[in-house]
Amino acid sequence: MQSRFYTLTDYPQGLPERELFKLETEDLPELGPGEVRIRNHWLSVDPYMRGRMNGVRTYVEPFTLGKPMEGGAIGEVIASNDERLKEGDIVNHMGGWRDIAQIPAEGVHPLPDIQVPEQAYLGVLGMPGMTAWTGLNLIAECRTGDNVLVSAASGAVGSLVVQLAKAKGCHVVGIAGATHKLAWLESLGVEPVSYRDRNAHELSDAIRLACPEGIDVYFENVGGICLEAALSQLNEGARIAVCGMIGSYNAKEPTPGPSNLFELVARKVRMQGFIVADHWSHYPDFLKEVAPQVAEGKLDYKETVKEGLESTPDAFLELFEGGNTGKMLVKLNQ
Amino acid sequence: MQSRFYTLTDYPQGLPERELFKLETEDLPELGPGEVRIRNHWLSVDPYMRGRMNGVRTYVEPFTLGKPMEGGAIGEVIASNDERLKEGDIVNHMGGWRDIAQIPAEGVHPLPDIQVPEQAYLGVLGMPGMTAWTGLNLIAECRTGDNVLVSAASGAVGSLVVQLAKAKGCHVVGIAGATHKLAWLESLGVEPVSYRDRNAHELSDAIRLACPEGIDVYFENVGGICLEAALSQLNEGARIAVCGMIGSYNAKEPTPGPSNLFELVARKVRMQGFIVADHWSHYPDFLKEVAPQVAEGKLDYKETVKEGLESTPDAFLELFEGGNTGKMLVKLNQ
Repeated sequence: MQSRFYTLTDYPQGLPERELFKLETEDLPELGPGEVRIRNHWLSVDPYMRGRMNGVRTYVEPFTLGKPMEGGAIGEVIASNDERLKEGDIVNHMGGWRDIAQIPAEGVHPLPDIQVPEQAYLGVLGMPGMTAWTGLNLIAECRTGDNVLVSAASGAVGSLVVQLAKAKGCHVVGIAGATHKLAWLESLGVEPVSYRDRNAHELSDAIRLACPEGIDVYFENVGGICLEAALSQLNEGARIAVCGMIGSYNAKEPTPGPSNLFELVARKVRMQGFIVADHWSHYPDFLKEVAPQVAEGKLDYKETVKEGLESTPDAFLELFEGGNTGKMLVKLNQ
Repeated sequence: MQSRFYTLTDYPQGLPERELFKLETEDLPELGPGEVRIRNHWLSVDPYMRGRMNGVRTYVEPFTLGKPMEGGAIGEVIASNDERLKEGDIVNHMGGWRDIAQIPAEGVHPLPDIQVPEQAYLGVLGMPGMTAWTGLNLIAECRTGDNVLVSAASGAVGSLVVQLAKAKGCHVVGIAGATHKLAWLESLGVEPVSYRDRNAHELSDAIRLACPEGIDVYFENVGGICLEAALSQLNEGARIAVCGMIGSYNAKEPTPGPSNLFELVARKVRMQGFIVADHWSHYPDFLKEVAPQVAEGKLDYKETVKEGLESTPDAFLELFEGGNTGKMLVKLNQ
């Protein structure tokens, strides 16, 4: 049996060129002890993957040039040498960026028995959803009545943050760009604020207009002018959960940080970076709280779906152009 | 009786000009109910006072133009309409920047009965010492064995931070400029690192050389290249206590922040600003721990002393030129 997979041919500077992603084919060896073979249905592309393309270890190892890339995926077990897993099981695993994955069974998990579409476990009930829940609750310690600001608020993580915060009884302001994203946020009861054609000062004014009482919790996905504008609108004792800074992931040159970091002192702010993997022991808590809301349709989530393995690099690259509303996914028809 | 005091004639842009500080004389009215009159012995000048010269409220009110400026001071009660205080008491209060203070008794506190020079209560046993203790213990949650980095390490706050951290059994790296400051740090068992003639990258290399195992706690007094260099040397889970950012207090234009703030995410860092006043309920704990060390000479502290009320503005302005080793004080001979 063959596997088709993407590999990186070189570590990019700046926005990766399409040509760096090479589709390869290999004959799979016989299934080894403890291995499982999976036919993927859905592949995830996520902004954090850009960090694995720099050739240096950060909190995860970089992708190895010439080897299959990795990422979240949902698929069906078609062969198993592990007693936990059997043919036909639908599983969540990290053998993405390929059609057939043959990997050790230890990182492969059957989906929970909840009536939602299977790809939800790559988004709203998967890593992005868990990231939103973790950042809002465990890192920012968001409380009922807080005023919450979210950047990239219509993205896979942000769109969950705003809804979880609304469900807590918070006043929520969401920063996004495209008109249809702002409209979606408004439909969720979120105060939409556009960053388009605004500098940090103008964005700050727009946030104040949307929330004159100041911000208690800022969920940061972007950096740049969003961070600078947010810092100037924080209340004393505000908490910033720093999930990511997508605005700088493809920067070729160092991009200066906000000029108003002293606000951390003046407003006694706690700013905390986090990686969701460190908090995975809370996944059952997350699932218990959020899965019923998803199953009952109380929590709105959107997907931007590309078709076919060949679309994976483009799906990834569009993340940096705001090409997705909600979760960006690749659907494999096999 | 007359009081001579400094007042601000205008809110400065950038480094305050000497002429903005005007020495005035007024006849004191009769002592009102609940008031106390104090002959000051020692005045404190501190970097945070620059923030009160911007004409806008941050965490404290700005100085009022034309009114006496305020600041920490130690003096002797010469008249009292408060039963707690009597003539001859040596007290700590906020009626500084003047020779004779006539103020409400409520913010006036007799010095604790500990055998140290009275001006120690403006430095090592006062606000700067308490700031060091609070930032290190309550904000950064420093633990035995942590690798600790301190900017402005020979200053009033920094020189306490490094010694408190040493006493906890930490490996301590201190950033300073002048040769005699670096030598003092070395005499305290601190690895001295100079920021002079270095950019952020070079400073980062120097910190790594002084502490190859990475930094667990960063006590921030400066900002600028110190922060950028520190961010690049942090261990996972590091904590930054942000006490101040003196490097930008006199900036006329916004000064860009560090270009590597994403390290907060990659290294899962908590960065927290604080104001010592919020933690003053812990002052007895601080005193219990630190005062005996000071009294027994186990804790080294330095003072840079200017003589006479007229030297107060210069003493203040020299804080921004690295003119002090340890605590900057003004001694009044009256």
